[in-house]
Amino acid sequence: MKQPILITNTTLFTDPDTALLADHWLLTQGNGIHSFGPMETVPQDNGVTQINGEGKLLMPGLINGHNHCAMTLFRGLADDMELGQWLNEHIFPAEATHVSPEMVYWCTKLAAAEMILSGTTTVADGYFYEEQAAQALLDAGMRAIPAHGIIDFPAPGVPDPEKNIDAVEAYLLDWQEKDERIRPGIFAHSPYTCSPKTLQRAKDLARKYQAPFFIHVAESRQEQEILMDPQGTSPIRHLAALDLLDADTVLIHCVWLDDEDRKIIQESRAGVVVCPQSQFKLASGIAQASEMMDMGIPVGLGTDGSASNNSLDLFREMDLLAKGQKVRTLNATAMPAGKALAAATETNATILGIPRLGRIAAGFKADLILLDLNQPHLQPCYNSDLLVYSANGADVTDVIINGERVLKDRNLLSFDLDETMQQVRRLATTLGSHSL
Amino acid sequence: MKQPILITNTTLFTDPDTALLADHWLLTQGNGIHSFGPMETVPQDNGVTQINGEGKLLMPGLINGHNHCAMTLFRGLADDMELGQWLNEHIFPAEATHVSPEMVYWCTKLAAAEMILSGTTTVADGYFYEEQAAQALLDAGMRAIPAHGIIDFPAPGVPDPEKNIDAVEAYLLDWQEKDERIRPGIFAHSPYTCSPKTLQRAKDLARKYQAPFFIHVAESRQEQEILMDPQGTSPIRHLAALDLLDADTVLIHCVWLDDEDRKIIQESRAGVVVCPQSQFKLASGIAQASEMMDMGIPVGLGTDGSASNNSLDLFREMDLLAKGQKVRTLNATAMPAGKALAAATETNATILGIPRLGRIAAGFKADLILLDLNQPHLQPCYNSDLLVYSANGADVTDVIINGERVLKDRNLLSFDLDETMQQVRRLATTLGSHSL
Repeated sequence: MKQPILITNTTLFTDPDTALLADHWLLTQGNGIHSFGPMETVPQDNGVTQINGEGKLLMPGLINGHNHCAMTLFRGLADDMELGQWLNEHIFPAEATHVSPEMVYWCTKLAAAEMILSGTTTVADGYFYEEQAAQALLDAGMRAIPAHGIIDFPAPGVPDPEKNIDAVEAYLLDWQEKDERIRPGIFAHSPYTCSPKTLQRAKDLARKYQAPFFIHVAESRQEQEILMDPQGTSPIRHLAALDLLDADTVLIHCVWLDDEDRKIIQESRAGVVVCPQSQFKLASGIAQASEMMDMGIPVGLGTDGSASNNSLDLFREMDLLAKGQKVRTLNATAMPAGKALAAATETNATILGIPRLGRIAAGFKADLILLDLNQPHLQPCYNSDLLVYSANGADVTDVIINGERVLKDRNLLSFDLDETMQQVRRLATTLGSHSL
Repeated sequence: MKQPILITNTTLFTDPDTALLADHWLLTQGNGIHSFGPMETVPQDNGVTQINGEGKLLMPGLINGHNHCAMTLFRGLADDMELGQWLNEHIFPAEATHVSPEMVYWCTKLAAAEMILSGTTTVADGYFYEEQAAQALLDAGMRAIPAHGIIDFPAPGVPDPEKNIDAVEAYLLDWQEKDERIRPGIFAHSPYTCSPKTLQRAKDLARKYQAPFFIHVAESRQEQEILMDPQGTSPIRHLAALDLLDADTVLIHCVWLDDEDRKIIQESRAGVVVCPQSQFKLASGIAQASEMMDMGIPVGLGTDGSASNNSLDLFREMDLLAKGQKVRTLNATAMPAGKALAAATETNATILGIPRLGRIAAGFKADLILLDLNQPHLQPCYNSDLLVYSANGADVTDVIINGERVLKDRNLLSFDLDETMQQVRRLATTLGSHSL
C-alpha cells in the first residue's frame, strides 16, 4: 500500500480554465488524487507523508507528447543545419554505430532525469531497443508510452527490415501488462522512410493490440517529394489513403498542411503533437496549431529528441507554442497561455489515450509537481500566465508520479543521477567529438 | 583594494570564435581580468579568493541591451494582447497611477536579482524616476546604462512634458561621474510618442554629454501611420531626416524595415537591439537580424521589460534569436549559436559603448559567470552550442561584476533578496489584480 501524501498551504493550479487557488491542501490516495480544498478544511494528519507547499505552486505534471529519449547522447553534436543534412549526414550515421541496448538504457535514463527535474511526469518516447527505453523509464519512476521504432532500412536491434513488424509485436507482448505506468506503443518513423505496406502492417498491429500509433508527418516542405510510393497528393492524404488515421493515431509535427489535410485530420479524430523548439531549430516552420485547435483537433506538445531542440524542458515548449502562434499570425491573441498549458497537460493525456490524467481533480492520477514561487522571476504572481511566460523547469522542487514521490527538493529519489551522468559521459567519449 | 579572485579547474568559454578550453584557471586583478591559462600553469595562491570551478563553465557575463527594469511590477498583469491595446489600455494607465520613486527602486532591484541569478552582469535600462533605477542597479552590484525616459505627455516624475529635457539634463549631471559601473543615458520612448522637436533636443543633449541615446523604432507594422509629424516615409527615414542616427544611437526593435532603412542604419553606424521574446509575445514580428548582421550592422540582444516577455533570462533570448531567424528564413544555417552568443556579449558591449567588455581576455573587465555543467540537461558537453540551446539562467551558480563577487552558489551577496521581494509584493497588492 502506498503512503498517502498531504500537501498543505499551497497555491493550486487545477486546470487552465480555473483561476489559481491560494492556501489549499491536496491529499493523494494510492495512485490517485483523493481530494483537495482550502486550508480551513485541511484533513487531520493520520500517518500521511506531509509536504509543506508554502510559497509553492502545485499543478499537474507535464506530459511530453513526443521524444526520442536516448538521443540525449547526440545533444549538441550537430546543430545549425537543415533536417535532411542533419538526419542523413549526422544523426543516422551516429545512430548506425553508437546505438546499443546499453546506450538506450543509460541515455534514456539521463533524459528521464532531465524531464523529472523540469516537471515532466509522462513521456511518449519513440526509438529502437525500445525495451531498454521502457525499462529505463520504469526504473526512473516515470509514466510512459515507449513506442518501438519501425523503419524500412537496417535499424538498431532490427538489422533486417523484413522483421521489423515481428520485432515490434514481440515488444508489445512483452510490455503490455508489465506495469500500470507503462503503455507500449508503435512509432513508424515517417512516410518517407516506411513503405505503404510497412505502414499498413504497423497500423494493423497497433489495432490488434490497441496500441497507440505514432508517425512523423508533414515536418518539412519537401516531404511530398520524398514519400515512398505516394498514395495521394500530400503526406496526410497519403496516410489517409492507407487508412492509418483514427483516434489512436498521433501525427507528429504537421507543419506543412493545407485546408484539406486539416479537414481529413479533424474527421479522423487523430491527435496532433507539435514540437515548436525542434521545428524552429531545424527551420521546418511553424505549425498552424491555433487553427487546428479552433477546428477541435486535439493539439498536444512535445520536445522531440535532445539533438534537435536541445532541451527537454516543457516549460520552454509551452512558451514557444504560444509565442510562435502569435508571431506567425501577427496576432497576439492567437494563442493565450491557457491553451499552451492545456496542450502540455490534459490534451496530451487525451491524445496519448491515458484516462484521468493531466488535471487536478478527485479521482485523477496523482502525477503532480510543485514549483517554488519564491524567486524573483516568479514575482509578482497575478495568475497562471507565469507558468507559460516566466517559469522554467528549474523552478520545480518536488515531483509525484502515480502517487509516489520521485523528486524531493530537487533530489531524485528514484535512481542514482551521478551514475547515469557518468555512464553517458563514458558513452559520449566513444563519439568522434570531444566531450568535456 | 579589491581582493583578486582565482577560479581553478574550470571549462573556459572565452568568446564565440574560440573552442571551449578544459581545465583552465583565470585570475582577476582589480576590476579586470589579469590572466588565464591551463591548469599546469596555475599561479600559486597569494592571498587571493579561490573559487573551485570544477564541473563548471566560466564565461563572460551576459549583457542585456534593453530593459525596463521597474516593470517587474507589471509582469503577467496583461498578457496575450497586441501592442497598442497592451500599451494604451493596460501599461500606460497602470504606470500613471503606480509608478513612484519607491516603486522604481524596489522593482528595479527585483529585476537586478533576476538578472544576476540568470547570469546578466550589465543592463541598459530605460524608464522614469531613473535616478532610482540607477541607485538600485548600483546597490545591486550591476554594471548599467540607466537611461532616463523622454515622452511628450505627462510622465512619472515629469508631469509637464515641456520640462522633460531639463529633467534628463539634471539626471545626467547628477549621475555621469558617480560610479565607474554606471553610465547614464537617454531613452526617447519612440517617434510616435515624441515630437520631432523633442527628439532633436534629446539627441542634442546626448551629444553634449556623450551619452548613449536609445529609442524604440519600427516595432509594429502600424508605426508609420502613428508617427508624430512624419519626416520621411518610414520610421527609420523619419529619424534619419531628424539627424538622430550615429554610432551612439541604439535603435530598439527594428522589426519592420525595408532595404533602404537597413542601408541608412548601416551607413549611420547606429546599433540595433532586438528583443525576440517580447517581439514574439506582442506579435510584432521577427526582425531580420541575420541580414543586418551580414551587412555589418551591430545587432545586440535585449529582453525588453518583464511585462512583455515575461522573463529577464538572456539565455532564453539567445535561444529564440537563433531559432527565430531559422524559422523566419526556413534556413537552419541563418543564425548559428555563436552569433547569438556574440549578440548578448561583445556586440552589446560595442553598441552600449563600454570598452573591454563582453569577452574573456587579459585587460578586459572582470564581469564573469559560472554555470554548473553537472546537470542532466547540460550533458554531454560537446561544444558551446549548449549555452544557447540547452542552458538557462538557473544554471548560473556564481557571478563576478567589476572584479567583485555578487553571487555565490546562487546566494546574492550584494543585497537582501527577501526584503526586495516583500517590498514588490506589497506594491503589487496596490494594483487591482489579486497577487498571490
